[in-house]
Amino acid sequence: MDLQRSPLARPFPDLPAIDGVTLRVARAGYKEWDRADLTFAELAEGTAVAGVFTQSACASSEVEMGREQVQQGRARALIVNAGNSNAFTGYRGREAVEQIVAQVSEALGCSGEEVFVSSTGVIGVPLPKDKARAGVAAVLGAQPCGFEDAANAIGTTDTFTKGASAAAMVGDTRITLSGIIKGSGMIAPDMATMLGYIFTDAAVEPEFLQEMLSKANAESFSCITVDGDTSTSDTVLAFATGAAGNAPLAAWDDAGADAVYAALLDVCRSLAHLVVRDGEGAQKFIEIAVSGAADDASARRVGLAIANSPLVKTAIAGGDANWGRVVMAVGKAGEPADRDRLSIGFGGIWAAKDGQPLADYDEAPVAKHLEGQDIRMDVDLGIGNGRATVWTCDLTHGYISINADYRS
Amino acid sequence: MDLQRSPLARPFPDLPAIDGVTLRVARAGYKEWDRADLTFAELAEGTAVAGVFTQSACASSEVEMGREQVQQGRARALIVNAGNSNAFTGYRGREAVEQIVAQVSEALGCSGEEVFVSSTGVIGVPLPKDKARAGVAAVLGAQPCGFEDAANAIGTTDTFTKGASAAAMVGDTRITLSGIIKGSGMIAPDMATMLGYIFTDAAVEPEFLQEMLSKANAESFSCITVDGDTSTSDTVLAFATGAAGNAPLAAWDDAGADAVYAALLDVCRSLAHLVVRDGEGAQKFIEIAVSGAADDASARRVGLAIANSPLVKTAIAGGDANWGRVVMAVGKAGEPADRDRLSIGFGGIWAAKDGQPLADYDEAPVAKHLEGQDIRMDVDLGIGNGRATVWTCDLTHGYISINADYRS
Repeated sequence: MDLQRSPLARPFPDLPAIDGVTLRVARAGYKEWDRADLTFAELAEGTAVAGVFTQSACASSEVEMGREQVQQGRARALIVNAGNSNAFTGYRGREAVEQIVAQVSEALGCSGEEVFVSSTGVIGVPLPKDKARAGVAAVLGAQPCGFEDAANAIGTTDTFTKGASAAAMVGDTRITLSGIIKGSGMIAPDMATMLGYIFTDAAVEPEFLQEMLSKANAESFSCITVDGDTSTSDTVLAFATGAAGNAPLAAWDDAGADAVYAALLDVCRSLAHLVVRDGEGAQKFIEIAVSGAADDASARRVGLAIANSPLVKTAIAGGDANWGRVVMAVGKAGEPADRDRLSIGFGGIWAAKDGQPLADYDEAPVAKHLEGQDIRMDVDLGIGNGRATVWTCDLTHGYISINADYRS
Repeated sequence: MDLQRSPLARPFPDLPAIDGVTLRVARAGYKEWDRADLTFAELAEGTAVAGVFTQSACASSEVEMGREQVQQGRARALIVNAGNSNAFTGYRGREAVEQIVAQVSEALGCSGEEVFVSSTGVIGVPLPKDKARAGVAAVLGAQPCGFEDAANAIGTTDTFTKGASAAAMVGDTRITLSGIIKGSGMIAPDMATMLGYIFTDAAVEPEFLQEMLSKANAESFSCITVDGDTSTSDTVLAFATGAAGNAPLAAWDDAGADAVYAALLDVCRSLAHLVVRDGEGAQKFIEIAVSGAADDASARRVGLAIANSPLVKTAIAGGDANWGRVVMAVGKAGEPADRDRLSIGFGGIWAAKDGQPLADYDEAPVAKHLEGQDIRMDVDLGIGNGRATVWTCDLTHGYISINADYRS
């Protein structure tokens, strides 16, 4: 099945190279396709690493190992296999990852703990060790490439290539961040796991890098949903090579820490939005801003309940300002809410306030807003100061076609 | 938009009348349609009542009042309005319900607490008091009718009329239960709230009737899902007139209590399955049996995570035995699970065992099973003795058409 480029696609930006990061790609041939499918990022000695991983109880070996490896805080290499997720493959899957780690750590003369591996693609088929061995050998000897080639090589069912960058000043030192991501339908385990990698030349202590990444994740990747499903392999890793030469950041009150965090959050949000924009069948990008909740976490859960509601998503697909379905989704979220204080708006125009439709509600400008590609929804619960913004896409015939008309 | 009869529809059964229950229908004209839309069940003095209601934090006035009324345990009347859910209508909605209660209780000479009201249909428009007043006057004077007429009158977007009955012996006394239900897409708040009513001539104390209904609900209505959305108005009420003349049942060890419960559960399950069979766009009825969970509640949550997964539901729609998506859904359920003990089967044939695809897995009979209308999925977590069975339908282009191509 040929996947058409998402109508919400964005062109690949001009991503700056990051000192201390060398990218290479090669063809392992995990699937019968005519493209690079194995990506290798070589990282300068002393590179700090942080990661966030799927909460799945059925995570892949790659994720299980990554969760452990990230704790020692240093990375020398990242390997990404595309075309086979190696999930649900038991001890044979684990052996394949261990083989890759051994091969790369030997070549680089580093510890196996410093070699991170991700895999994405079909589930339930152990990663073929022979293809992995030949692919890794090829990638170790390949010519360096840029971020766009790497972003292409980590993709599977993505309909466009995704990257984002940002910069910040730490004192007089300019810090650069470049990130790439793959994912389409946040989390179709067959071929659409979300994998994201952010590289920076900043010097950051691993524990603080983890703190920053976890915080940025909570406000970006954890606030997007395409279909509410969660992959066995979702992974976001941040690598800080330190090549910029700034005084290493170790705490929030260090000079420049706020600026670096803002840049990191910017990259994470941009990458997260790109995944939503490539959501399976997506025709519209939807931003849902929840305010007046009991607290921020409650606001986020209410937002995701709305964003995951098939009835809300199909209404938006149909250009229907169906605030009744939003009431329903708020009601089912299991969070503190008061029907008679609830307000709902679209495109900056309130449709219902304090639990009742507005008497003078004019649907015409709202209908016009809903004809566009970028939809904004405001939901005020009226009971507290909690806020969150979440992002999703609409649910269309395209989603059904991609997922039902596809035979694994 | 014309809704086609569900391919999974069942003919309306021959429901026995229940002594102590008189049914009448009339036209209130809540919508512009040419059919009865107001249903009245008059109940013998002393009828016991029990109820289960939506957990929504944004429930309708009808639900809020019903939750209170059911506590005193007795009912003389049920009124069901179809075409307007009266949800999210503030004090004006509450006034409309109070008016109906006053009108009916005056006519019957009973307390207002004993008059139960449900409404289903469009959200956000207060139930028009004038239409309600004229409709109630008409229904109070209408000729008695049978269950099929009542089941038709409570329906909205249902594509077929739904009822079920069962019988039990309490000593030498034959007990009969007849139930009707409406709902299509468990919970589309516009027009597809689930409302169910079960009538029996058994004599049952209200507290025990509530205990039985709550228990039966947990194994029936709480185990179905069409799209994971929860209505503002979902209600199931059970009425026991006592006209059969058995010694009133008050506890589980009373003679006949088990038989009556089994009959009640039978009716609840049958009604619940009919709602799934009328799920919006449903082409296949799916039973998911979860075993080996930490406990029964955990098994039910895992089952519902699978049943609510758009990726699983679209795979079944496509006839794809995609156990990888089931692994994903188990992993995201947030319940105790061990990837390497998980087994998954379709139509009684295991596809994966103990965390790996079966080496001799023959997909042909499974593919054949998935071509049918009734799909069975087995999921064994391998970590405990918890069990649950849940029911859902597939997710198809029909669901999108009904919900996206519809303008409120």
